[in-house]
Amino acid sequence: MSRPDWVPLRDELRDAEPYGAPQIDVPVRLNTNENPYGPSAETADDIARAVGEAAVDLNRYPDREARELREGLAAYLGHGLTADQVWAANGSNEVMQQVLQAFGGPGRTAVSFAPTYSMYPEYARNTHTRWVTGRRRDDFELDLDAATALVAQEQPEVVILTSPNNPTGTALPLEQVRAVLDVAPGVVVVDEAYAEFRRAGTPTALELLPDHPRLLVTRTMSKAFAFAGGRLGYVAADAAIVDALRIVRLPYHLSSVSQAAALAALRHADELLARVDDLRATRDETATWLTGQGYEVAASDANFVLFGRFADRHAVWQALVDRGVLIRETGPDGWLRVSIGTPAEMSTFRTALKEVDPR
Amino acid sequence: MSRPDWVPLRDELRDAEPYGAPQIDVPVRLNTNENPYGPSAETADDIARAVGEAAVDLNRYPDREARELREGLAAYLGHGLTADQVWAANGSNEVMQQVLQAFGGPGRTAVSFAPTYSMYPEYARNTHTRWVTGRRRDDFELDLDAATALVAQEQPEVVILTSPNNPTGTALPLEQVRAVLDVAPGVVVVDEAYAEFRRAGTPTALELLPDHPRLLVTRTMSKAFAFAGGRLGYVAADAAIVDALRIVRLPYHLSSVSQAAALAALRHADELLARVDDLRATRDETATWLTGQGYEVAASDANFVLFGRFADRHAVWQALVDRGVLIRETGPDGWLRVSIGTPAEMSTFRTALKEVDPR
Repeated sequence: MSRPDWVPLRDELRDAEPYGAPQIDVPVRLNTNENPYGPSAETADDIARAVGEAAVDLNRYPDREARELREGLAAYLGHGLTADQVWAANGSNEVMQQVLQAFGGPGRTAVSFAPTYSMYPEYARNTHTRWVTGRRRDDFELDLDAATALVAQEQPEVVILTSPNNPTGTALPLEQVRAVLDVAPGVVVVDEAYAEFRRAGTPTALELLPDHPRLLVTRTMSKAFAFAGGRLGYVAADAAIVDALRIVRLPYHLSSVSQAAALAALRHADELLARVDDLRATRDETATWLTGQGYEVAASDANFVLFGRFADRHAVWQALVDRGVLIRETGPDGWLRVSIGTPAEMSTFRTALKEVDPR
Repeated sequence: MSRPDWVPLRDELRDAEPYGAPQIDVPVRLNTNENPYGPSAETADDIARAVGEAAVDLNRYPDREARELREGLAAYLGHGLTADQVWAANGSNEVMQQVLQAFGGPGRTAVSFAPTYSMYPEYARNTHTRWVTGRRRDDFELDLDAATALVAQEQPEVVILTSPNNPTGTALPLEQVRAVLDVAPGVVVVDEAYAEFRRAGTPTALELLPDHPRLLVTRTMSKAFAFAGGRLGYVAADAAIVDALRIVRLPYHLSSVSQAAALAALRHADELLARVDDLRATRDETATWLTGQGYEVAASDANFVLFGRFADRHAVWQALVDRGVLIRETGPDGWLRVSIGTPAEMSTFRTALKEVDPR
């Protein structure tokens, strides 16, 4: 849309559109990597009960430090982490904005490796951080020599690695993260939003924290905890890094309601994470089926699969929408990304795809 | 505290401390302008019920546009406003950060008039907006000639007026807001966080919106709605201004839980706002009593009173803390700010103050 000239927007924002996947009301939504399984009635009730208890004191500001929640998140992560080494915010996107406010900004550089999460450049734009993009290999793995050379050359204050990567699903071997940490002069963020979905044997960068104080590992409750509506992202890092983030956080950024709801969901981790195993199995079945149909399929450690290639991906995407199946037109040209839904949803997706693109 | 040198913080943040009033566990907390009256059991239950209904779908992302909530807020504000003219975020501090991200930033200037809310310079710092401060008169009213001259000279993209002002309680006459709008080249934000507490006859800048498209009026549910723990700030403005804020908002910034809880609180506006009248009466009684004791008292349209003067305000503040009464050491030197609590809390405050500072 065109904006009226009198609106005194910054020049770089004048023609921008708000970020977000198209929201289309269809029966099968496989476009934003949501967990298809909502919380059980018992878990939803416990969340309501916890919020009801917090509601009595809503006239008071929340715990600015979200201490109890950070303790709960640290206990969930394990690896010997304590609350001092964990920070939480309204979604991992708020965590990432705080990271760039503290460590990026004007005169500073952030580096990432495409194709990757399309929101990163907007964090950089909104924090006035110079944004440099390296390229992944054709199989979406990190090209380590090129990556370390780029970091050595650009000397970025912030490097963002994404593992498993979105939208490709690619996880990074820890020796690659270590190699980037060795050359990076500033902080290295490993965005592990999808970590719980990784395949057996795929490690987490949490293992590297004890020996790498400039490493930040971000997580979210949106996916594995089926808590996208609750908006709770967090980061594990050295206590001095967490302390630095507190300087740029808005005071009382995390409401009492958010803190209570997230703590209640954490108490039901066993139930919520049990669904993760189902989703991993469905993910692997989906990848196998797509491969069997003759598609190229990116190896995925996440709750989505990137597949292709299509001469006209938009036509395929639209034809699927017309059949009530919404997937995501994202990533490199020629590829489409499908989030993993229930077996019934994936069956609808398979049927629709066969109709739309018979191979 | 000193931070380790290896933490790659931006230079301007290196020696900064996280913003926030000291949190001290005492019986009478009159330091952060909280509403002393929590929601009734019925309202707390309704909030829990609303969150319980939202919890069933927590695996799905929230409504990115918070449409229903914005409709509710527009209906509450009245003045013919619609949802397109209202925007909401996690506290008015997130609204203000978005305003400075969209309209301020590097190479741009924001102007405000001190003494005023001490968080503003931090929003400016975090968004790299040049910050210029004018001075209010000794009675804390705006010096209109000096203010318009400063705006004409600095040509700021953002002007922040605060009415009622924090920490002084001073409300602005609308002709002063109009005069600033007439000379300001960019947006003018009137921060009305305390508007519901204004005295009879004091107007709201909402009245000016139809004729002033570059005017933004910010509000919060923290104070009048006793919803500080819920973190819900909002702004009323021209639809084109709201649309501009959507570019810099983080996607899904407002959780389903926050939206549901705030909507439930809005449904109980009658109950919650009834307490505002009690607080206004207690505010006026407190001001009268302080005046009778021989203090200078700033005329207040808010839920706090600034009073003085003290040769050593810190000693008075500490002596009150020692007696279990926490007020705020803020504003111009020599003055202290007391938030309005329950009649019982104010009685404890009066007794303690007489002991500490017999006049």
